Amino acid sequence: MPLDLAAIRAAHERIRPHIRRTPVLTNAALDAACGGRLFFKCENLQEVGAFKARGATNAVFSLSATEAARGVATHSSGNHAAALARAARLRGIPAYIVMPSNSSPAKIRNVESYGGRITLCAPTQQAREETCARVIAETGATMIHPFTDERVMAGQGTALLELLEDVPQLDLVLCPVGGGGLLAGTAIVAKGVSPALGVFAVEPLGAGDAARSFEAGHIVPLEHADTIADGLRTTVGAPNFAVMQRHVDGVLTVSEAGIVAAMRTLWESLKIIVETSGAVPYAAITERQIDVTGRRVGIILTGGNVDLDALPWKSGKL
Amino acid sequence: MPLDLAAIRAAHERIRPHIRRTPVLTNAALDAACGGRLFFKCENLQEVGAFKARGATNAVFSLSATEAARGVATHSSGNHAAALARAARLRGIPAYIVMPSNSSPAKIRNVESYGGRITLCAPTQQAREETCARVIAETGATMIHPFTDERVMAGQGTALLELLEDVPQLDLVLCPVGGGGLLAGTAIVAKGVSPALGVFAVEPLGAGDAARSFEAGHIVPLEHADTIADGLRTTVGAPNFAVMQRHVDGVLTVSEAGIVAAMRTLWESLKIIVETSGAVPYAAITERQIDVTGRRVGIILTGGNVDLDALPWKSGKL
Repeated sequence: MPLDLAAIRAAHERIRPHIRRTPVLTNAALDAACGGRLFFKCENLQEVGAFKARGATNAVFSLSATEAARGVATHSSGNHAAALARAARLRGIPAYIVMPSNSSPAKIRNVESYGGRITLCAPTQQAREETCARVIAETGATMIHPFTDERVMAGQGTALLELLEDVPQLDLVLCPVGGGGLLAGTAIVAKGVSPALGVFAVEPLGAGDAARSFEAGHIVPLEHADTIADGLRTTVGAPNFAVMQRHVDGVLTVSEAGIVAAMRTLWESLKIIVETSGAVPYAAITERQIDVTGRRVGIILTGGNVDLDALPWKSGKL
Repeated sequence: MPLDLAAIRAAHERIRPHIRRTPVLTNAALDAACGGRLFFKCENLQEVGAFKARGATNAVFSLSATEAARGVATHSSGNHAAALARAARLRGIPAYIVMPSNSSPAKIRNVESYGGRITLCAPTQQAREETCARVIAETGATMIHPFTDERVMAGQGTALLELLEDVPQLDLVLCPVGGGGLLAGTAIVAKGVSPALGVFAVEPLGAGDAARSFEAGHIVPLEHADTIADGLRTTVGAPNFAVMQRHVDGVLTVSEAGIVAAMRTLWESLKIIVETSGAVPYAAITERQIDVTGRRVGIILTGGNVDLDALPWKSGKL
C-alpha cells in the first residue's frame, strides 16, 4: 500500500478507538502578537503524552494475526518506546524494547508501566542495533522503526487529518522535524488535501541537518547535535527525506533561546505543558523565520513529557 | 429570576458565544491509582485561564442596555478582575477595577491587557470597599461581586452543565470552595439534574471556614488563611452558604503537602497547568478524604494562572 492520503485515512480509522481526539487550542493574545491565526493541535494531550501513540498504534494494528503473535520490537529511549509498548498491550502481544543502559530511571519505568519487555544495551548506536537484531532473531518480532516505518509515518499523519477536520481552512502548517516521521505524514496529508496548503519543517539550528539536507538535495548526516530539543537530535531518515523533497515547502531553523522562550510563552498562554521539541514550530514564528500575517496556521504541539525538576528557565542552561 | 437550573441553562445560552467549550480529560493511570473514573473539566483552558470568565460574562451580558452603558465595577486582584474586564470589552462598556496597590505588576498588566480601568487603593478590605463605592457613585457602574452575585453564580454553574453534556453519568462532583461562587452554581446544577448526584466541596485545611461553617450551621468567618491555594483564602459568602446548606453533601479538607503533590501529579499526568487552588479537589482523592472506588467523578479544574518562576516544588515552601 503506497503511503498516500488514502493510507493515512485508513490509518485513522484503524487507530481511532485507541487514541485520543486531542483538542485544538487558540489564543487571542498569541494571534495578536504575530498577526496571524494560530491553531494548536495538542498532541501533548495524546496518550503517552505525544503524537508517537498514533504511529506506533497504526503499526501494531496493521500486523497480520500471525505477525502480531510474535510481537514487535524497537530500539528507542523515548516516546516511541512507550507508545509501542502501549499499543502492543492493547493488542495483547509482547513489545521488546531495547534501551541504552544510561536511560533515565523515569524513562525505563514509563516503558515498564505499559508492559514493555526491556533489554538494556551499551549506549552506542551499534550496540542498540545489534541488540535489537538479536532480540528479533530470538523472538521473530516485527521491527517497528520510530520514523522510517511507513505504517508509523501514516499514523503520525492522522494528527493533521484531525486538525483539518476541526479547522478546514488553513494556509500553512508548521511541523518540527527530527527523524521526519511526523513531517512525512503531515506533508502527505497537507498536499493530498490541497497543494496550496504550505508545509514548513522547523528544527533547532543546533540540529540543523534537515535544512542542510534540503538545500543540498541529499541527506547531510547530523554529526553533532547541540540542542535542548532532545526529540529532534536525529538525522532525517531516507524515506522521510524523499517525502520532504517532494512535499515540503521549506525548512526553518530556530535558536536555543527562541525555543525556551517559545516554550514558556506556550505554557503561560495556553496553560498546557509543551516539551522543548514541541515548542520549536512556534519559535519559528516568534523569531520571524516566517511571516504569518493574515494567515491561518496549523501548529502541531508534539508532546508534553517534561522533567518538572529541570525546567529550562530555571536550570541556567541559557 | 431565581437561581435555579433554568437560570443556569439560560446563562449558558447567553455566554456560549463568548467563552470556550473546554475539554474534558481522562487518564488511565490516575484512574488506576484511585480505583474510580475521573473526568477533569479543564477550566484552566478557559478564557482568562479560569472558570471566572463564565460568571463575569453572564453578569455583563445580563445587564440592560441602560445599566450596561454605565459600566461595571468590582474590587478584585485576581481572575475575576481580568474576567470582568474581558467581558466588558466584549460588550463595549467600561470595567472599573479596584485593586490593592500591592498587587503584582503581572496582575495589573493582565487586567490592563483586557482594557480594565484600574483604580489602586490601600491594601485593606475597608479601602477596597470604600474605593469601589466611590467609583460606583461617580460612574453609576453596576457592582459585580466576584461570588455573591447571583448572575456570577449562574455563570459558574455552566461548567458542570457542559461536563454533564459530555459525561452524562456521574456519581459525584468535587468542587473547590473559597467564596463559594463556583460551588453554588455547581451544586444547583448537580441537584437540579439529579438529586442522587453527590456534591462535595473541598478546601485547604489552612482555610477551612467552609467545613467549620457547614458543621456549625452558620458562617464561621476565616480569621487567618494559611494556604498556598491563594484562590481559596476567602470566607464563604452568605448566599453561597445558603446554597451550600441546601445542596452540598459534605465539605472535605486537604493538607498543604497534599495540594502541592496533587498539583504536580496533574501536571505530569494530564500535561496541563493547574494552579494550586485547582488541584485541591484532586488532593481530596489522593489524601483519601473520600472513597471513589468504582465511582464516576467529575472534577472541575478551576484555573491555570501560575507564576512559573515560583513553582511550589521548587520554592522550598514545604
